[in-house]
Amino acid sequence: MNRVVAISGGIGGAKLALGLYKTLPPVALTVICNTGDDFEHLGLTVCPDIDTVTYTLAGLANRTLGWGREGETWAFMEALKAIGGETWFRLGDGDLALHVERTRRLAIGDSLSAITRDFARSLGIRAAVLPMADTHVRTIVQTPEGPLPFQRYFVEQQCAPTVTGFDFDGADKARLTPEVAAAVSDPDVSCIVICPSNPFISIDPVLAVPGMVDALRAAPAPVVAVSPLIGGDAVKGPTAKMMSELGLELSNRTIAARYGAFLDGLIVNPGDEVEVDLPQHATPTLMTTDAEKTAVAKEVLAFGARLAS
Amino acid sequence: MNRVVAISGGIGGAKLALGLYKTLPPVALTVICNTGDDFEHLGLTVCPDIDTVTYTLAGLANRTLGWGREGETWAFMEALKAIGGETWFRLGDGDLALHVERTRRLAIGDSLSAITRDFARSLGIRAAVLPMADTHVRTIVQTPEGPLPFQRYFVEQQCAPTVTGFDFDGADKARLTPEVAAAVSDPDVSCIVICPSNPFISIDPVLAVPGMVDALRAAPAPVVAVSPLIGGDAVKGPTAKMMSELGLELSNRTIAARYGAFLDGLIVNPGDEVEVDLPQHATPTLMTTDAEKTAVAKEVLAFGARLAS
Repeated sequence: MNRVVAISGGIGGAKLALGLYKTLPPVALTVICNTGDDFEHLGLTVCPDIDTVTYTLAGLANRTLGWGREGETWAFMEALKAIGGETWFRLGDGDLALHVERTRRLAIGDSLSAITRDFARSLGIRAAVLPMADTHVRTIVQTPEGPLPFQRYFVEQQCAPTVTGFDFDGADKARLTPEVAAAVSDPDVSCIVICPSNPFISIDPVLAVPGMVDALRAAPAPVVAVSPLIGGDAVKGPTAKMMSELGLELSNRTIAARYGAFLDGLIVNPGDEVEVDLPQHATPTLMTTDAEKTAVAKEVLAFGARLAS
Repeated sequence: MNRVVAISGGIGGAKLALGLYKTLPPVALTVICNTGDDFEHLGLTVCPDIDTVTYTLAGLANRTLGWGREGETWAFMEALKAIGGETWFRLGDGDLALHVERTRRLAIGDSLSAITRDFARSLGIRAAVLPMADTHVRTIVQTPEGPLPFQRYFVEQQCAPTVTGFDFDGADKARLTPEVAAAVSDPDVSCIVICPSNPFISIDPVLAVPGMVDALRAAPAPVVAVSPLIGGDAVKGPTAKMMSELGLELSNRTIAARYGAFLDGLIVNPGDEVEVDLPQHATPTLMTTDAEKTAVAKEVLAFGARLAS
C-alpha cells in the first residue's frame, strides 16, 4: 500500500489532512502534528494542533469557530469565571475531556504518542495521528518587549506584538519518536506532505526536533510542500504578518527557501508562482469545502507521484 | 455578635447550614465541612461536601439531584466516555470548574482553606466555609472483601457492601486549621451545631482530626447535635444500614453515645426520643422546604440558648 505522511499544524494543515484522509484508504495516512503550541493551562496539558487534527479527522471539528468541537457548550468557562479563574483561553465542556484525560495519563507516565493514538482510535479515526515528539517542546515568540509563551502571544494578545524571532524551548532535548522516525523513512510511503500551515509556528517546531530535517532529507519519498500563501497573503493567521516583521519577502520564494534543505516540490496557488530551483505546481489551494480539500489532496498526490517517477 | 458554628457533611448537613444561613446574619455562620470523602479523580481533587455546602449557600445547588449544580450540563462526561475515560463518578460541566481550579491552586501550594474561602467569596457567600483540615484525610470503608476508598463504596458500589468499620487515612497527621480552632473556641459563638449528617462518614472524619474532640469539649458554646434519624431511619443515605451492619441500636441512643464526649444537647424528631443523660428537644427535623430548614435552624438556636443560660 502507498502510504502518505502529512506534517501539520492546526486549522489550515488539518484541512489538507482531511482531504488526504478522504482521498486515501484511511489507514494509509499518517499525520505528524506540531506540539510547539502545546501548553499547560489550569494545570492541564492542552495540545491544540493534535486536537484540531483529531477533531477534524473524527468529523467532530467546529466548522464555525475553526477550532474546538461542533456543538460545544461553555458551562465550565462560565463557572470558572464565577470563581475568579483565568478565562483568556477558552476551553469547551466537551473539549475539556481530552485535556483532563490526557493530563491524568501523562501524570501516570503514559506517552503523548500512546494517549494521542488511543484518543484517535476511540473516536473512530483509522489514520495514525502522531505528536512530533513525546517530550515538551514549547514555542516562545520573541518580541521587542521580551519573550512570550506561544498561547499568550497567539490567543491572549491575538498576535498583536511584533515578532523578532522564535525559540522552541526543549527542542534540543527532544527526540524523534519511533513512530515518527518509522513513518518518514518508510519505503512504502509515496509522498511526504508539508501542509499549508504557518511555517514559523506550525512547521518549524517540527523541524526543530533533532533528526527531523535529516530524516526528511533521507526520506525515500518525495517531500512536497503546499504553500500557505494565496495571492501573496495567508488565508488565516499571522503568516504574512510574521514574514513582514521578520523582513522576509512575502512570496513563495521564502517558503521554498525555508524548506529548501529537504523539499522536492512546491505547490502554490495560481498566480503565486515564483522562480525557484525546484519543481513547482500551481493549483487552487483555498480549502473551504470538503470538495476543495479532496481536490487539493489529489493534486498533491499526483504531483508527488510525478516527482517520484 | 452571636456567631454559630455548624459541622456538616454533604446533603443533609447542608440543608441545616442553609437554614442557619437564612436565619442568622450571614456573616455570623461558620460551617466546618467534612473532607474525608474528598478524593483524587481523573487527576483532580474533588471535595464533595465542601462543594455541596458551597453550592447550597450560594443558591446554586441542584434541588433535584441533591448534589451538584442546578441546570448542570454533561458534555464533559459524554466526551470523556467517547475517549474511554472513567465515567462511574459523574462530574458536571460547571462543577468541573471548581475541581480544575482547586487542583491548579493546590498544586502551586495554596491551602484548601484559602481556596475554599475564595470560591465561597466569589460566589457571594458571606458565611465562612471551612474544610476540617488542610491535609488529606481519606475515609476508607472496611468490608468483608477488604477496604474500599469511600467514593468507590458510596458512588460506584452504591453502599451495597457490608460495612465492618472505617479508617480515616491521614487523620493522625492532620491538624486543626487556625480557622477551625478559632471558630470552635470563639467566646462569641453561641452554639456549635452537629448537623444531621451521617455520623460514621460525615461527622466522625471531622472528629478524627487530632484536637477536634478536645476543642469541642472545651468549647465555651454548647454543642447541639441534630439527629439524622427520623422514625428510626435515615432520611437519605446509608446511616441506618451502617448502624445495623455495625451491630448498633438503630436509635438516638447510638447518636448520643457517639457524640457523648462533648455533646450538651440532642435534637430529635418527635417520636424518636430516647432515655439519655443529656438535654433532649423534640421538633420536626425533616427539611424539604426552605421554610422547614429555617424552622429547624430556629429550634436549634433556641435550644442552644436555653442550654447556655
